[in-house]
Amino acid sequence: MILPTFADVEKAAGRIEGVVIRTPLLRSVELDRRAGGKVFVKPECLQLTGAFKIRGAFNRLSALSEEQRKKGVVAFSSGNHGQAVAYAAKTLGVAATIVMPGTAPAIKIEKTRSHGAKIVLYDPEKEDREVLARAIADKTGETVVPSYDDPFIIAGQGTSALEVIEDAPKLDAYIVPAGGGGLLAGSVLAFEELSPKTRLYSAEPESYNDHQQSFATGERVRLENPAPTICDALLPLTPGEITFAINRRHVTGGVAVSDGEVCAAMRFAFENLKIVTEPGGAVALAAVLSGKIDTRGKNIGLIITGGNVEAAFFAEILAKR
Amino acid sequence: MILPTFADVEKAAGRIEGVVIRTPLLRSVELDRRAGGKVFVKPECLQLTGAFKIRGAFNRLSALSEEQRKKGVVAFSSGNHGQAVAYAAKTLGVAATIVMPGTAPAIKIEKTRSHGAKIVLYDPEKEDREVLARAIADKTGETVVPSYDDPFIIAGQGTSALEVIEDAPKLDAYIVPAGGGGLLAGSVLAFEELSPKTRLYSAEPESYNDHQQSFATGERVRLENPAPTICDALLPLTPGEITFAINRRHVTGGVAVSDGEVCAAMRFAFENLKIVTEPGGAVALAAVLSGKIDTRGKNIGLIITGGNVEAAFFAEILAKR
Repeated sequence: MILPTFADVEKAAGRIEGVVIRTPLLRSVELDRRAGGKVFVKPECLQLTGAFKIRGAFNRLSALSEEQRKKGVVAFSSGNHGQAVAYAAKTLGVAATIVMPGTAPAIKIEKTRSHGAKIVLYDPEKEDREVLARAIADKTGETVVPSYDDPFIIAGQGTSALEVIEDAPKLDAYIVPAGGGGLLAGSVLAFEELSPKTRLYSAEPESYNDHQQSFATGERVRLENPAPTICDALLPLTPGEITFAINRRHVTGGVAVSDGEVCAAMRFAFENLKIVTEPGGAVALAAVLSGKIDTRGKNIGLIITGGNVEAAFFAEILAKR
Repeated sequence: MILPTFADVEKAAGRIEGVVIRTPLLRSVELDRRAGGKVFVKPECLQLTGAFKIRGAFNRLSALSEEQRKKGVVAFSSGNHGQAVAYAAKTLGVAATIVMPGTAPAIKIEKTRSHGAKIVLYDPEKEDREVLARAIADKTGETVVPSYDDPFIIAGQGTSALEVIEDAPKLDAYIVPAGGGGLLAGSVLAFEELSPKTRLYSAEPESYNDHQQSFATGERVRLENPAPTICDALLPLTPGEITFAINRRHVTGGVAVSDGEVCAAMRFAFENLKIVTEPGGAVALAAVLSGKIDTRGKNIGLIITGGNVEAAFFAEILAKR
């Protein structure tokens, strides 16, 4: 197993420069008041394709050989990663096939198609997307682009943390939503090197808290039949192998939030940060607002990972208060 | 009449550095497709207090004498300017009184109060806010902070344009929402000096198109009983005296959009830029999306001026499509 290093994050930063949006750090008087500290928000919902995923995807595709570029890429993704690979592929002139569950939000399927990718829908109740994608790759020679358990993907996602460290004062803690753990692992690489005293935390939905459990036990826990959550971007049942090997050496622990706390965080972001967040994108903010992280008198960083949410659902959440 | 100059914008940039958020330029594949060109969006809804107004307010208050600071400030504002003055005053340790119409959106009144300002509500049907504010100032010795017709306010707002010019490639056009014309005038000062070939346009609601009419006739037109608009941030009936003296020498013309086009732009910004825009904040985006500006093959810049909109109203707009 080859683990990416800080040098890979730096290389990734060079590849994505001028391609992705250099997102700022947002501040809010109300958020600071609620936290009793200073909170710095990295809004990757503002990123191209509406999520941080373009960082890893563009880094991975940029590093393909000429031969690999000609044959194209295939990715399996419930949404944001698929959009990112499709967009990166189009930008680099590479063909892309995206394998998506038929149950994914319509907005994500549509957007992925709009970037020119070939979409293969599958039935998540009956088929395994990874098996499907590998079968396609075997047949076509396309390179599989994993959504998190890949050194280039991890290094690419870590570029967001480089920017946070550059823009924020010394952070006492940094909170990162975790699905497969790729963004968290990339963040570990950056913080270990540049700000090793900052404590890193994963944030997850309560029912999909495989990272929280895994950090507590020291081993990769696999969930069995978790209860449903609105956080459709955070559904992996277990941490990635590569990502966990990195995360376990530096992450302090995991925080889990309820769907109700996620909705409250989405409304808070609307009102006070003026950004659109998807449920999975708001779990780190929910962790701070719910008081599950000690923020009193501290400098806290958190990342909003995406904003791809259907208008009708978002309107419902706004109306709920 | 003393007109501010480019040097005043530069001085303002020095004063606000590290205080306000350095907002990025956002891009969207879908927006470029719709425009047939490249569009660069300055999202000042992400700014502290949810609007660009903090730039001018902080610049004005920073320049007060010690004597003036002790006596405090008074501002009359339908919302965003009031919030900005209240926030700037708190940051600088100055007392602030904000005179607001009782009809202003509740969210704006609440937020202004939350920054520690004293709020005086008035009845816009019966009282003149400017007369009221000056009466208060005469009694208390507080300095009146106008919302647009002031050299410091104009210079402060112009700092947003400095950032746009720094971040974007050479722009063929730059579109700015106009209420009193302060942001537009500050932008003129920056573009005249740094990018004189960029054409500047004002954007307004159709019924409150006093800038469009004034640019067409060359004189400040005052509207009589305009039809209502949802753009509550853009209700001045005539361009400012100082602002128009600056704007007339460099602005190419005005664009006016319907409330329906504004709603469509707000939905578009939700879906494709993941930002929350208030109606008046979205008129420049509406100008591009409605095809009222020639964008084919061009580099176009536009500014989203604010995001202070009530959740229930925003939910309604999302549900409309």
